[in-house]
Amino acid sequence: MTSVAPHHDGSPLHVSNLTPRLGDVVRVLLRVPVDYGPLAAVRTRSNPDHEPEWADAVRLGSAEGWDWWRAEIVVRNPRHGYRWMLQHADGRVEWLNQTGCHTIETLDAEDFALVANPGPPAWLFDSVMYQIFPDRFARSSAADERSTPEWAVPASWGDPVASVSPARSQQFYGGDLDGVIDKLDHLVSLGVDLLYLTPVFPAASNHRYDAASFDRVDPALGGDDAYVRLIDAAHARGIRIIGDLTSNHSGDTHEWFRAAYGHPGAPEQEFYYFTDDDNTTYVSWLSHGSLPKFDWSSAELRRRFIEGEDSVVARWLTPPFAIDGWRLDVANMTGRLGAVDLNAEIRQLVSARMAGINADMILLGESTNDAASDLQGDAWHGAMTYASFTRPLWGWLSEPADAVHVDEQGGRGEAWFFGQPIGGIPRYTAREFVAAVVRFTAGIPWRVRLGSMQALDTHDTARFATNAAPGTIPVAVGLSMTLPGLPVVFAGDEFGLVGADGELSRTPIPWDTAGDPSTAQRIALYRDLIGLRRARAVLATGGLRWVHVDDAGIAFVRESAEECVLVLAARGDVDVDLPAGMVPGAARAEAIFGDAMLAVADDGGVLLSADGPVFAAWVLPGIEVPASATPPGRVQPLRDVVDGEAAPPPIVSDAAPEETK
Amino acid sequence: MTSVAPHHDGSPLHVSNLTPRLGDVVRVLLRVPVDYGPLAAVRTRSNPDHEPEWADAVRLGSAEGWDWWRAEIVVRNPRHGYRWMLQHADGRVEWLNQTGCHTIETLDAEDFALVANPGPPAWLFDSVMYQIFPDRFARSSAADERSTPEWAVPASWGDPVASVSPARSQQFYGGDLDGVIDKLDHLVSLGVDLLYLTPVFPAASNHRYDAASFDRVDPALGGDDAYVRLIDAAHARGIRIIGDLTSNHSGDTHEWFRAAYGHPGAPEQEFYYFTDDDNTTYVSWLSHGSLPKFDWSSAELRRRFIEGEDSVVARWLTPPFAIDGWRLDVANMTGRLGAVDLNAEIRQLVSARMAGINADMILLGESTNDAASDLQGDAWHGAMTYASFTRPLWGWLSEPADAVHVDEQGGRGEAWFFGQPIGGIPRYTAREFVAAVVRFTAGIPWRVRLGSMQALDTHDTARFATNAAPGTIPVAVGLSMTLPGLPVVFAGDEFGLVGADGELSRTPIPWDTAGDPSTAQRIALYRDLIGLRRARAVLATGGLRWVHVDDAGIAFVRESAEECVLVLAARGDVDVDLPAGMVPGAARAEAIFGDAMLAVADDGGVLLSADGPVFAAWVLPGIEVPASATPPGRVQPLRDVVDGEAAPPPIVSDAAPEETK
Repeated sequence: MTSVAPHHDGSPLHVSNLTPRLGDVVRVLLRVPVDYGPLAAVRTRSNPDHEPEWADAVRLGSAEGWDWWRAEIVVRNPRHGYRWMLQHADGRVEWLNQTGCHTIETLDAEDFALVANPGPPAWLFDSVMYQIFPDRFARSSAADERSTPEWAVPASWGDPVASVSPARSQQFYGGDLDGVIDKLDHLVSLGVDLLYLTPVFPAASNHRYDAASFDRVDPALGGDDAYVRLIDAAHARGIRIIGDLTSNHSGDTHEWFRAAYGHPGAPEQEFYYFTDDDNTTYVSWLSHGSLPKFDWSSAELRRRFIEGEDSVVARWLTPPFAIDGWRLDVANMTGRLGAVDLNAEIRQLVSARMAGINADMILLGESTNDAASDLQGDAWHGAMTYASFTRPLWGWLSEPADAVHVDEQGGRGEAWFFGQPIGGIPRYTAREFVAAVVRFTAGIPWRVRLGSMQALDTHDTARFATNAAPGTIPVAVGLSMTLPGLPVVFAGDEFGLVGADGELSRTPIPWDTAGDPSTAQRIALYRDLIGLRRARAVLATGGLRWVHVDDAGIAFVRESAEECVLVLAARGDVDVDLPAGMVPGAARAEAIFGDAMLAVADDGGVLLSADGPVFAAWVLPGIEVPASATPPGRVQPLRDVVDGEAAPPPIVSDAAPEETK
Repeated sequence: MTSVAPHHDGSPLHVSNLTPRLGDVVRVLLRVPVDYGPLAAVRTRSNPDHEPEWADAVRLGSAEGWDWWRAEIVVRNPRHGYRWMLQHADGRVEWLNQTGCHTIETLDAEDFALVANPGPPAWLFDSVMYQIFPDRFARSSAADERSTPEWAVPASWGDPVASVSPARSQQFYGGDLDGVIDKLDHLVSLGVDLLYLTPVFPAASNHRYDAASFDRVDPALGGDDAYVRLIDAAHARGIRIIGDLTSNHSGDTHEWFRAAYGHPGAPEQEFYYFTDDDNTTYVSWLSHGSLPKFDWSSAELRRRFIEGEDSVVARWLTPPFAIDGWRLDVANMTGRLGAVDLNAEIRQLVSARMAGINADMILLGESTNDAASDLQGDAWHGAMTYASFTRPLWGWLSEPADAVHVDEQGGRGEAWFFGQPIGGIPRYTAREFVAAVVRFTAGIPWRVRLGSMQALDTHDTARFATNAAPGTIPVAVGLSMTLPGLPVVFAGDEFGLVGADGELSRTPIPWDTAGDPSTAQRIALYRDLIGLRRARAVLATGGLRWVHVDDAGIAFVRESAEECVLVLAARGDVDVDLPAGMVPGAARAEAIFGDAMLAVADDGGVLLSADGPVFAAWVLPGIEVPASATPPGRVQPLRDVVDGEAAPPPIVSDAAPEETK
């Protein structure tokens, strides 16, 4: 049985200001079980300019079995980390950080963290994202009038996806932007309100990540006019839309690259890493010549791409287009090559340029593995990443069947898992799922975690349904909607599509099957779970507290002062005992999703039970915070911390107050 | 019983090159117990430019119960992280990083790491450091001829240390540099070979961290001539010497600060953070006006302090002084203030300037807490830090008595621990000691870990002996000499001195007690343990493998191909069972320190037993590495990793080999 433990997280229930400025005082609250034993002191430990700074917490009183403590933190750095120190009356010391409670000291990187840079618009946290791969989503009647691009291998909507080159990236279904407009009603009924379209720029492939230009929309998609029509039509329905930009590279057919390739001395030469005198050999993304890598030391590239009046970053954010933000492709590698690392500089330039246009936009960076080092709130509002949710989810809820990789030449090789040659899908217990989620979110400030995509799959991965254990789709979708983060639906998942890898997952949407019972049921499942997320604000910005974790299943609660949502998730049958005090509001729980039993015992303990697989949710009353602050009688006054042993005492000693400027 | 597990570390036994350059191929070796079960594949996962790159390992064969695997890594970034992936034949996947084995994915920050920047001179790893606080070490006859500095409160050598202001930092014992020369024979007999002197520049305090100038040695210490005499005399005895420089601040009596204070427009104005128009208020270290903080955005400050021909950093490293390196004070805060962080830039400038003089110098940075973020090998060869050894050691081996803090006004306040108001010394088990050491070294490349100071105490802390549990001094000193890192003796520890805080620990060395039985015994203990360290090269650069960890005690082995040293350490009585195969060479173990029993059972298991407290060490034969590489028949060929699902397949798909530049 998981026991009740002290708790803090970055949510409004525990932090007074999610978007502070440098110098602001932020009030942070800690909850400790009333029967946790007497505490001699509770403090926060910050680390401004990399030197510890301490603040006393005062006890506010008790409510519903929790003692509440409050400390005030002065925000000193753009990322201001802090942790809690609990000093027990018996001399024991506990530390609380984003990984939980510790008896030994903890790492700076896993501190709770406030971010003093401008935050994203609040709507980011409330959104449910829908990802569209334009060539495969929907084809409008206008598409029939257009000629097929030179590079393209025409395919009919019902044709199977070719995963072998050359057709692999040349296979062209002709989905277009007016096709997306035609299907907006589907998106409205589904309940999503943020569209993410993979690139719409002209290119020499169906994925368009090899941009030939950043200045216009591919005519094969309907061109600029169709893009404006789509943006307006989406906005008219309350749906926002963001674009996809390759900041690490362009295509080798890009106008900049063509101007430089074979033309020594061309102004665009400095945009790339040419390695010979005649500009014919160059550095490219993972050695793929079609994707020449940008050299961000070029001031002119920065001007044209980011900083200029009519830069690539800026022009699509302004009328007549005015999209609502960007997802940057291969953000993790952008500006990085060997001894050079301009990544922070470039992402901050992009962020600043966007803020200069208006503050109502979001900026997401692709970083598919451990994203923490780039995700400290200096630029990215969130990441498109797989380490902190997607892969752990697969590990727990997939069949152990290998996901055998089929390479571009059609060979069946090593069994992959998200680009990792590890023999296929790993096999996680529920406990390992939670351990992985905690591990890969612990280094990310809460605010940035909320903006990070929580996808089951994307255009770059196999589809989750391909290997899902029987009955686990609702569990997976439910978790994506209820754990802190930005839920994402990859177009077609709601139609039950499968696909064994990132290529085969790009099946054209079978619109004519929407009425089939099984498809209709799947669509309804998504509608219900998206509806659940959007109906409960606590799922967007509420706190997260794990109340039960074992190998078989998990239970957690999202918490706010207004309401809470209790979630039970398991791959098989599950019986969960929650000790008294773990979920005080359980007696007033109302089931809002799934088929599970919740019973409250006389001692206040809670039993959750269900035949698995199960995803169940209950709504509970909000958390009560004691208003009245009691005198801090139990807290020993904290003297000037710089008197500490580890701070050079002599340096301290000659600092009479009047000397202190 | 701790079980035998796969092992890798940064030592020469497992890594072919500790000082690679970008582009070099480094061969890394993994050891797996022969009975660990069949493996389908073993691979390394690197992360160049933040994108995973994989390398197959080939099996080299077996020796002494270990299967050996080898992979080749191309060093792509100045800090090149890598981890091991073990794919079991039954589908299980294991990851191995600097924290050990994991079934779930691991953090980039805890990867093993190669460093491609120039390394420190090899002697850093072989050295045993001795720290001297000049005013309190030894007083030469010449000192009697000198007048007492204006700021000073004269004290006789036998007077008690005053910990209360104003005497606290003004109390002046008159130790000097010729006094150090007089005592070099003591240091030679002790066996130390690297002197670290706290600042020798003129100042207005006995600690001299408030430098009045960086251009000359304090006349009260004997001036420049005495410094030259000391350096020459030390070098003549094979003892190196490093200085102590404050890069975060100067004193408020410093010539630069005086030139700027109250003089708007002075060239030195930009060296500091003045906050008013008449240059009379300014930012200082932790608000102590006597220590105005440097503003490193000043190019002129960089020139005078670092980059100039006769800069502060440079001049003391060149004749007639030619010290062997620097320890930089408050390195963790240098160049950091609020939204500004020039720390990496400044430490790299210092490192580059020193390398420009010669490569035979070391550069250490003070970073007393979690030092990992600044310790990635771009500048510091090591850190003066307490989180990764000193504080865990205190937690384990001290009496639980509170170390009550006495502040500069003499008030008895909060019970501190190394500047942390946590109620005194925490109480760690042996298991927690190891957990803390592992946690705070996991983020540091092996090479940098070897250069980081491993002190029991320093001039800034209480002395370990003050609170040491009975009989644990040999355990503490022994661990400082045998765990990977730079051993440090704070002058006076070998005389058994105590001190309740960083001020009281600065007792003048009681030279006349050297002959007292208890003192002579303590000195002999240090001589023996320093001798142990210096006699066994494996203790300097050998690998580290924990072979037993429980609440009562620990055992580990330092390993090389030439020899190994097995260490047993415990606070109380201890019996340790090592399973067969854990220490293959145990049958040929020779005791080299301490009083403990080692017995090898018929099954090859090893029993270690002793009445505690105990520190015992045995020398064992070197580790045998199979020379012959067997064909990699058991390894599935790894296809081009960029074909992985998570790598955008379409981007991959249009990369026919001939396109790949």
